[in-house]
Amino acid sequence: MKMITCIAPINMAVIKYWGKRDEELILPINDSISASLSTDVMCAKTTIVTSALLKENKFWLNGQEQSFDSPRLTNCLRAIKKRADEKLPHLHWNISICSENNFPTAAGLASSAAGYACLVYALAQLYNIEGEISNIARQGSGSACRSIYGGWVRWHKGNSPVGEDSLAKQIVPADHWPEMRLLVLVVNDTKKKYSSAKGMAITTLTSSLIKYRANEIVPRRIEAMEQAILNKNFQSFAELTMKDSNSMHACCLDSFPPIAYMNEVSHSIIQLVHLYNDYKKELTVAYTVDAGPNTCIYLLESEVEDFLSIVNFVFPNNVDDNEYYRGLKLPSIRPLDESIVKDLNLSANKEGLLKYIIYTKVGEGPRVLDDSKEHLLQDDGLPKHF
Amino acid sequence: MKMITCIAPINMAVIKYWGKRDEELILPINDSISASLSTDVMCAKTTIVTSALLKENKFWLNGQEQSFDSPRLTNCLRAIKKRADEKLPHLHWNISICSENNFPTAAGLASSAAGYACLVYALAQLYNIEGEISNIARQGSGSACRSIYGGWVRWHKGNSPVGEDSLAKQIVPADHWPEMRLLVLVVNDTKKKYSSAKGMAITTLTSSLIKYRANEIVPRRIEAMEQAILNKNFQSFAELTMKDSNSMHACCLDSFPPIAYMNEVSHSIIQLVHLYNDYKKELTVAYTVDAGPNTCIYLLESEVEDFLSIVNFVFPNNVDDNEYYRGLKLPSIRPLDESIVKDLNLSANKEGLLKYIIYTKVGEGPRVLDDSKEHLLQDDGLPKHF
Repeated sequence: MKMITCIAPINMAVIKYWGKRDEELILPINDSISASLSTDVMCAKTTIVTSALLKENKFWLNGQEQSFDSPRLTNCLRAIKKRADEKLPHLHWNISICSENNFPTAAGLASSAAGYACLVYALAQLYNIEGEISNIARQGSGSACRSIYGGWVRWHKGNSPVGEDSLAKQIVPADHWPEMRLLVLVVNDTKKKYSSAKGMAITTLTSSLIKYRANEIVPRRIEAMEQAILNKNFQSFAELTMKDSNSMHACCLDSFPPIAYMNEVSHSIIQLVHLYNDYKKELTVAYTVDAGPNTCIYLLESEVEDFLSIVNFVFPNNVDDNEYYRGLKLPSIRPLDESIVKDLNLSANKEGLLKYIIYTKVGEGPRVLDDSKEHLLQDDGLPKHF
Repeated sequence: MKMITCIAPINMAVIKYWGKRDEELILPINDSISASLSTDVMCAKTTIVTSALLKENKFWLNGQEQSFDSPRLTNCLRAIKKRADEKLPHLHWNISICSENNFPTAAGLASSAAGYACLVYALAQLYNIEGEISNIARQGSGSACRSIYGGWVRWHKGNSPVGEDSLAKQIVPADHWPEMRLLVLVVNDTKKKYSSAKGMAITTLTSSLIKYRANEIVPRRIEAMEQAILNKNFQSFAELTMKDSNSMHACCLDSFPPIAYMNEVSHSIIQLVHLYNDYKKELTVAYTVDAGPNTCIYLLESEVEDFLSIVNFVFPNNVDDNEYYRGLKLPSIRPLDESIVKDLNLSANKEGLLKYIIYTKVGEGPRVLDDSKEHLLQDDGLPKHF
């Protein structure tokens, strides 16, 4: 019997992945860059048990048993096993997989990236695989390849038709830019949206602008973004981040039918960021939005107190603070200076437009948890908590 | 003393004008196509008086006296006078201009296009100008050049740096496609938006997609749209109309700061159009949206009853029918079949998301009103109604 438990980070792209050149192999039409976010705040956790006694393969996700036949899961498993030493006895045993996110999927944050990165990392540990595994994680969920590394990570789209060169590489580790922080403003929303997989498929098929974005706009931005990160140039980083988010959502809107992931609250936050940056006479905060209305703010630690006090004025809430503020310990949030309210002509929205706020930072990649208390499965391959 | 009164139509673009290559001369970066809409429903009306006795030039717009020094007004007046016979005695007299829209500017419909078309048309009558005047109307408000003609009109962007070839030409008159109708769904909205002039300036300066749209996407669409109109091919017309509206709004969103003219009601109407067309298994209605949240529906007369009954189910109103339905006489609106509600999984929104609905059709260009009761000014150059 063998058992392993790992955690892996979620990641937040600053140059977006939007559009596949191969749906099955999950090969993208452009490079993308993201930061992996601290696993202390949000992570996926996976335990795998393998034993000669297990009668069948089993898979639990967030407490629900799933079919083991999903093509994405079997693709990852097959690719990992192909890399393992045939002589490993446990390579031929059945396995039990149990995976959980320590953050609500309702947050609208891409949980599948962390989930597949964690699964593939854990399988690699189980079967003693060394070397590149991000191109295997990619076959579970495209952006999962970026969660295989900590810090700032670039997913190279690759040119091979079979995708062996479509993989992630770390640009710099998390401690390269230790002041970088993120505020995830989780927006209340009831509308049903297209999943990112469905959305990018519609865009790739129907948008007349997406090819130009992928072939002409993103390649220039990718190089500039890598430089901005290497040089810790927040001005350039912020401008590229915001423009690339806008560009991705523009291509969504250019799709047929048009796709609008942002709602009026997302747009209000974006307007507030522009207003605030204009007021500060430099780019001090940067927004980026994925396939949903939640708006993520990249900013340096020194800006958090100021910006958050403005967000709290404009988006008042009546939720208990312990529920509302999640993640890292925040600086004390002070009432807003009257002068800023006046200078920026701010007004408070009705309560409850934001569900909660997550405060986090750039963090490390996947790792093994050695403490046996961390395991999600029992020796018999069944979940502990049922 | 000479007095003339004219009316001119508003127009609704199906291939959008978005972006100028010359801000002062109002030269666009791409061709555009619109229909001029029936002046029986909506029009601008202008009376001009000229007399040797007038001590100064005067200008009233919608009952408010305006400065006569606006560059757009003086540009139009100068360009017209340059074309007139120097020997006309009244060419050197002062003038009084009074202009009105017979529709609320709050409707968010481009009133300046109709207004400048009417002004330039009336000035041309006053000074006996013959021939091309659309390139003069263009200098008042870009899309005004298209309101100089009735029916379906194409604004050729032209190549001259001074713009003499940037002018409108009629594709076909209104009676070419007599079944074509429009429903303007006027959306309640409180947000302040950028004017179209400001919005397109931001897009032209900052969007990384707008040049590609103007140089690569629109030229192909323009030719296809002209063919669709000539052949009365509603399928092709509808697809091009919707895609080009989406493309313009995509470029707005790609601007920095991003510009969102559509709100959630506009997006709901668009979703409903796609749902309805899918249900009908062909494109029977087409949406198009300008620089605001109002959503304009092009459809054939035979579809109005069906589509409007669905709109009324999804967007219930508690406004008096005489206030709510404006324009041409509508077919009687019947309650929606239960089967359609079920098939399309429709649900009613809260009341009051739409302000009112204007029903209109493609119509004629500007014309002179001979009846002296129509004049907005008295012989002394002062407005009648004060």
